[in-house]
Amino acid sequence: MKLNWGMIGGGEGSQIGPAHRMGAQADGNFTLAAGALDADPDKGRVYAQRLGVAPDRAYGDWREMLEGERGRADRVDLVTVATPNATHFEITKAFLEAGFHVLCEKPMTMSVEEGEEIVRVAEAAGRICAVNYCYSAYPMVREMRAMVAAGQIGKVRLVVTNFSHGHHGDAGDADNPRVRWRYDPAMAGVSGQFADCGIHALHMAGFVAGDEVERVAADFASTIPSRVLEDDAMVNFRLQGGAVGRLWTSSVAIGRQHGFDLQVFGETGGLRWASEQPNQVYFTPVGGRTQIMEKGEAGLSDEAGRLSRVPIAHPEGFPLAVANIYVDLAATIRGEAHGTLPLAVDGLRSMAAVHACVASAKADGAWVDARPPMLR
Amino acid sequence: MKLNWGMIGGGEGSQIGPAHRMGAQADGNFTLAAGALDADPDKGRVYAQRLGVAPDRAYGDWREMLEGERGRADRVDLVTVATPNATHFEITKAFLEAGFHVLCEKPMTMSVEEGEEIVRVAEAAGRICAVNYCYSAYPMVREMRAMVAAGQIGKVRLVVTNFSHGHHGDAGDADNPRVRWRYDPAMAGVSGQFADCGIHALHMAGFVAGDEVERVAADFASTIPSRVLEDDAMVNFRLQGGAVGRLWTSSVAIGRQHGFDLQVFGETGGLRWASEQPNQVYFTPVGGRTQIMEKGEAGLSDEAGRLSRVPIAHPEGFPLAVANIYVDLAATIRGEAHGTLPLAVDGLRSMAAVHACVASAKADGAWVDARPPMLR
Amino acid sequence: MKLNWGMIGGGEGSQIGPAHRMGAQADGNFTLAAGALDADPDKGRVYAQRLGVAPDRAYGDWREMLEGERGRADRVDLVTVATPNATHFEITKAFLEAGFHVLCEKPMTMSVEEGEEIVRVAEAAGRICAVNYCYSAYPMVREMRAMVAAGQIGKVRLVVTNFSHGHHGDAGDADNPRVRWRYDPAMAGVSGQFADCGIHALHMAGFVAGDEVERVAADFASTIPSRVLEDDAMVNFRLQGGAVGRLWTSSVAIGRQHGFDLQVFGETGGLRWASEQPNQVYFTPVGGRTQIMEKGEAGLSDEAGRLSRVPIAHPEGFPLAVANIYVDLAATIRGEAHGTLPLAVDGLRSMAAVHACVASAKADGAWVDARPPMLR
Amino acid sequence: MKLNWGMIGGGEGSQIGPAHRMGAQADGNFTLAAGALDADPDKGRVYAQRLGVAPDRAYGDWREMLEGERGRADRVDLVTVATPNATHFEITKAFLEAGFHVLCEKPMTMSVEEGEEIVRVAEAAGRICAVNYCYSAYPMVREMRAMVAAGQIGKVRLVVTNFSHGHHGDAGDADNPRVRWRYDPAMAGVSGQFADCGIHALHMAGFVAGDEVERVAADFASTIPSRVLEDDAMVNFRLQGGAVGRLWTSSVAIGRQHGFDLQVFGETGGLRWASEQPNQVYFTPVGGRTQIMEKGEAGLSDEAGRLSRVPIAHPEGFPLAVANIYVDLAATIRGEAHGTLPLAVDGLRSMAAVHACVASAKADGAWVDARPPMLR
Repeated sequence: MKLNWGMIGGGEGSQIGPAHRMGAQADGNFTLAAGALDADPDKGRVYAQRLGVAPDRAYGDWREMLEGERGRADRVDLVTVATPNATHFEITKAFLEAGFHVLCEKPMTMSVEEGEEIVRVAEAAGRICAVNYCYSAYPMVREMRAMVAAGQIGKVRLVVTNFSHGHHGDAGDADNPRVRWRYDPAMAGVSGQFADCGIHALHMAGFVAGDEVERVAADFASTIPSRVLEDDAMVNFRLQGGAVGRLWTSSVAIGRQHGFDLQVFGETGGLRWASEQPNQVYFTPVGGRTQIMEKGEAGLSDEAGRLSRVPIAHPEGFPLAVANIYVDLAATIRGEAHGTLPLAVDGLRSMAAVHACVASAKADGAWVDARPPMLR
Repeated sequence: MKLNWGMIGGGEGSQIGPAHRMGAQADGNFTLAAGALDADPDKGRVYAQRLGVAPDRAYGDWREMLEGERGRADRVDLVTVATPNATHFEITKAFLEAGFHVLCEKPMTMSVEEGEEIVRVAEAAGRICAVNYCYSAYPMVREMRAMVAAGQIGKVRLVVTNFSHGHHGDAGDADNPRVRWRYDPAMAGVSGQFADCGIHALHMAGFVAGDEVERVAADFASTIPSRVLEDDAMVNFRLQGGAVGRLWTSSVAIGRQHGFDLQVFGETGGLRWASEQPNQVYFTPVGGRTQIMEKGEAGLSDEAGRLSRVPIAHPEGFPLAVANIYVDLAATIRGEAHGTLPLAVDGLRSMAAVHACVASAKADGAWVDARPPMLR
Repeated sequence: MKLNWGMIGGGEGSQIGPAHRMGAQADGNFTLAAGALDADPDKGRVYAQRLGVAPDRAYGDWREMLEGERGRADRVDLVTVATPNATHFEITKAFLEAGFHVLCEKPMTMSVEEGEEIVRVAEAAGRICAVNYCYSAYPMVREMRAMVAAGQIGKVRLVVTNFSHGHHGDAGDADNPRVRWRYDPAMAGVSGQFADCGIHALHMAGFVAGDEVERVAADFASTIPSRVLEDDAMVNFRLQGGAVGRLWTSSVAIGRQHGFDLQVFGETGGLRWASEQPNQVYFTPVGGRTQIMEKGEAGLSDEAGRLSRVPIAHPEGFPLAVANIYVDLAATIRGEAHGTLPLAVDGLRSMAAVHACVASAKADGAWVDARPPMLR
Repeated sequence: MKLNWGMIGGGEGSQIGPAHRMGAQADGNFTLAAGALDADPDKGRVYAQRLGVAPDRAYGDWREMLEGERGRADRVDLVTVATPNATHFEITKAFLEAGFHVLCEKPMTMSVEEGEEIVRVAEAAGRICAVNYCYSAYPMVREMRAMVAAGQIGKVRLVVTNFSHGHHGDAGDADNPRVRWRYDPAMAGVSGQFADCGIHALHMAGFVAGDEVERVAADFASTIPSRVLEDDAMVNFRLQGGAVGRLWTSSVAIGRQHGFDLQVFGETGGLRWASEQPNQVYFTPVGGRTQIMEKGEAGLSDEAGRLSRVPIAHPEGFPLAVANIYVDLAATIRGEAHGTLPLAVDGLRSMAAVHACVASAKADGAWVDARPPMLR
């Protein structure tokens, strides 16, 4: 049976909204049954109905939706929160407490304390709180994780990841509201580029290595001087198992489009992946030749197979990585077998890392514990 | 409002079925309302219901579906035909005659005469008969077509395209039923690899150049001697406007995964695209540097913009190219603006080209008119 | 001991001259001892002396050089002929008959008869007549040849090669004397682009496959109408062992810079190489992953090792491929072990192939025997 | 006229020796006239004579060579020092003081004090002391420098460079003497991988940006625990003009072969280059498309043109980058126009940076002044 799905935010013109709708609908698991899609209640109601939501479930805001849905027999099985960052905490918490499963866009919260609160609330409610670290759901990223877990590159020594683009590199564009807020503490919080893109890379590093970040040392720069928050950051880190990490993130790297890649080096091999060509992994056994692994090739892990839809060399892209998060959510809600979902605890770890990096950067790159207090 | 969609073939374990379901559902345009999904009626009925089809519309075969749907007020707005090749003609014709819009998998028919019949039937019925030349629906393929049409590379001189993979290169695998039928005239008709992959490339050549194939000269080879039909083919061709064409297709090119690419060279520039990295086009103005164009970049044609969903450098893959066919079908059915759909006439042209290439190859590469009689 | 080397042609401003001088000198095997470098005798004498040639060996033309050198005790051990194409035959023949070893630029001759004459003269004189098919001397091309010979891809089924650039794609440039002569039968002979670039590709196909071309079927086009000779050609061919060949060559493929690549597909694997990144080979065993082979990696053939100078991943380029021809020439002259040099017989085969392709193209692509009469 | 050249070190089996001999000889500027090629005097004498050196100039060691050459009328015009690192200082100093021009392999010295001494000695003697930062002599690297200098990417904001390979990634190989010495302070000095490869990258960063490194903050790791010195390092830096720098260097990045690349981002554009494909630069003007620049294309700087030998798309590799250093040395010695040679002051800056990074790494990544005392 199809599951009922509700969405908060992601209205007309939103960048991330379509990816969620394709993600939820592509595999036929979810029906968009309810929504509070826009900051403007009327626009949100109209747009929801255009997307096929019944008039009584096309809500004006998230509070109205919470009231409307909580009592229904056919209430939504999952709520996606894709609103402005500063509102994630309040909405996610409210829906979890009301017994809904939630998929929250990143960043899950603005502070570490809020992150810990969400972890506690989700646990107390017995509900799933997933966070949309969708890159971790690409089949070949899952394959890398499976290879590392199976010891195919030996003990991990080194993880190197970049998420550096150039789309905020035009100083003349710095006053553009769509760009400016990202570097303004009043709207973006304590961090700019690292909180926006860097946390995807840091999550992936831990996800693929099968380990967690323990400490960080960061160098932040505002290469466009009018910016208060960083538009370029280098973060050295250590995983708990001792592996060394390097993470570069930038929004002024003109010529890089997406610029997200990951390299993992172990005692007996190395792996390389890039988000702009997500269907390949380059694997080199120590002393051997680099092999090009392809999504859909024979012999991949169950996890990589399960999350791929079309045969080898037919590329699957970003929206289907988001869809894979929904595949696993549907399976979890139905009590079926599923893969490793990014959860509230991952959202919490990201927030702790953001604050740790900010503290390190202010202390001239001193090493700072990046673990959330509740997980030390 | 959502449109009702029905599917014939594409049952459990089918390779192309999931791409159609994702394609129809990803953008929320269609609901899977009816289906006859499997050669085994019971399996088909069960699977359809698992996909959310109501029991009374989960049919045992296409005839049952035709009878069941034709009288309904809420009958399906579109039928997708994804059955074995030899059955496409009969099913497509029957549904068109009953007034349904149809999307037919390629090849549309097995003979030129059947192809002409479908064109006539669709026209008489006033229904859409689209053919799934889905590669032509990638945003950046539409962009190339728009650039050529706008004169950005001048008059086209030369089109070079390859669709060469190595997945049938293992002679030990030649008896595998999933491979063998392709080279057996009793099942595949007059052509093997050219009819399977070559016609995609030939369609794209004409589509992007904005012209039609006039004549062909083919060299076919069965490099695995047990094969009756060709597993490797070179086709020289001429477009009506005089442009020269080169098309190589192979299934024994070990190491090539998908291997579909297109190059178009005109008086003032050249274009290059490859299906394994479908979000980029390489454009070189004569005397200038090669420029890397990206899906989602500013300034692309309306057509490329309309068929892209997520921002620049977030890759969109094969299932969303299929989805773009459905986007245009939905728009057409609703009477909205839409792009150039591949239609029955394109399916007919492909079949004429297949038979012309076969005739040429038998005549040691003599030039043969590739136009369907009704279009000469 | 260093060998004495003489050069005819390749004067100041010549494109190919520097590659020969680097090639001869880079490994310290040859000293430039004599030269007739320019069509203008005075310019040639001055330039030779600037390059360190003694005044009495800085000749005004090749006849003067032949007279001057033939009687000397320290006469040159090797003469390189890098003059305009139509003069190769006469000069090469004269020096061979006088007992000099010769390295001739391609094409060795303009006719098949001349080619056969050179083969006979070289044999009668007991002198080396090498032809500068320098691409065959890249270490990784030698590696491919060694792999094929060792059966690592099984029996060769298919060879696909392209040598297509866009540097003559500007019709406005068609009157430029540096471009125009290439398409003028009075200066270029019977073939334009195929004779210029295609013969490199055809030589490589046979060289790597370890077999010879038996017959050809060609489609020639002058995509810029003012040209008499072809600027684009497709050649289907068969090797003597039955392998299928495909060769595309073009000078109007705007955006391709050099555009020379080679793919070889056998029963158990495939190989891919491209001249613009000549230090890698992509090798795919049937049913396995593509492996990236690197010049200088452990375990390569003796031949690939011998012709490489700097460690893995330090690129070696075109001038050092030319140098490898001189390495093998020096070894041959000294009576030392050496690799497979391209010789007069290869130059002859190329000329036979050129004339066969021209005949085929005139006969609408009919198959034509491509073997020189003396080798049938 | 040819110049006389002498070589110290670089004997039979040396890795760098052949690159110097090709570099000096390829363009015909230098004749190998003298040499002390091996730690074993007899082997060195024999090998030198095999390379064409007269017996009386085939020396047993550098002191013998200094004595033998200093009084000759035809004494060598240039001495290349390619001996073990710890001996560079003494030999370079002695030859400079005796009035010879010197090309010293990197690192020029082991300490900052020695580096300052060489700078003073070269200046006092009025002789050239060049250091072999050969990557800076690739034509397209010179092109990037020229573009930055001409303001084509605006003020430089950010320089990102990596020099990370995996050739020391096998722990089982850690006792191999060819690998082990690199991580042993007794032989390698204060730094392992950074002093070996990182200084090339740091030199390039300053060279292309047209600025000098002011301060550094380093994170060093020995990912193979038996190593005393680092096999992986991340260095954040600032150029004097304020630009931010990121440099990652590793020898355990299994799967990376050479792994040297450079990205420079300015106010109005970005540049990208990689040493394994050294003939291309990717240039992106802000808000525009990435353009692929090719060595040899029309319109490049004089400097890029002067240092290229063969036409566009004919690759030139590492040995010819070394040759470009010799081209500029010959021009300088002859008093002709030449490009920017890497000189003793660059060798000194590198040594200061090495010691600054070591100090920073020991101080947990604190920022350290990287300028040599004499240049503050």
